[in-house]
Amino acid sequence: MNLIDETEFAVMRAPASGAGTKRELPDVLAGDGEEFFAIEAKSTENNVVYVNAEEVDDLFYFSENFGAKAVLGFRFNIEHGDPAHGNDANPGWYFFHPDDLYKTPGGNYRCKKETAIQEGIDFQELFSGTKQTRLDV
Amino acid sequence: MNLIDETEFAVMRAPASGAGTKRELPDVLAGDGEEFFAIEAKSTENNVVYVNAEEVDDLFYFSENFGAKAVLGFRFNIEHGDPAHGNDANPGWYFFHPDDLYKTPGGNYRCKKETAIQEGIDFQELFSGTKQTRLDV
Repeated sequence: MNLIDETEFAVMRAPASGAGTKRELPDVLAGDGEEFFAIEAKSTENNVVYVNAEEVDDLFYFSENFGAKAVLGFRFNIEHGDPAHGNDANPGWYFFHPDDLYKTPGGNYRCKKETAIQEGIDFQELFSGTKQTRLDV
Repeated sequence: MNLIDETEFAVMRAPASGAGTKRELPDVLAGDGEEFFAIEAKSTENNVVYVNAEEVDDLFYFSENFGAKAVLGFRFNIEHGDPAHGNDANPGWYFFHPDDLYKTPGGNYRCKKETAIQEGIDFQELFSGTKQTRLDV
């Protein structure tokens, strides 16, 4: 939230729970007048993170109705010095369109740390406010 | 929230407080893929409601950055049978672009119940999902 607040984007975080809607809301909605992102964010102590199918379905449902791009954001909270840890220029968040992730036979979504580093959209790129992000859905 | 949830719009309510942003967030963000509304909602037991200048400034600030239309919504919680009370077709909310309201010498915004009924955009109209609302800002 605070990081996005420093960018050109305006951002709203979902209420902690019981928002009164039938489906889960995304964690964050961000917009800069041109692009709108509905973001589900996951932070992990592990080298791999899973997002279950229902959660992604709800993210797609909201995103399509609202008119935002569905985005999954991952942060691997690992030791300092690790390239995934992040720094000032890259706070360690890696973003994906769900369809760009590996889908397990059970329909859940998986992202490994290495995949995040190699293929993820980093914070600066997602919130650059230009039209040049790779999230063309 | 529940009412908007029944429409074509997807909706997110702001967290109760301490959202981590420097300025106040609007109460509600709603979008249907074409239109985006940042809504500050006021409910009153009186026949007139005031919104202070700072609150409207924050609403404009967020709306412009996010890419939404700034909307003030009023509900006058008065006795049943009163036309402002609302019914199934009209739940009693009246919406305005702030600039369409009377501004007090102190810079605050005022809406009387009669003005709301006569000039306000009603719920069905705002959330019709068509391009025909009067909120062309």
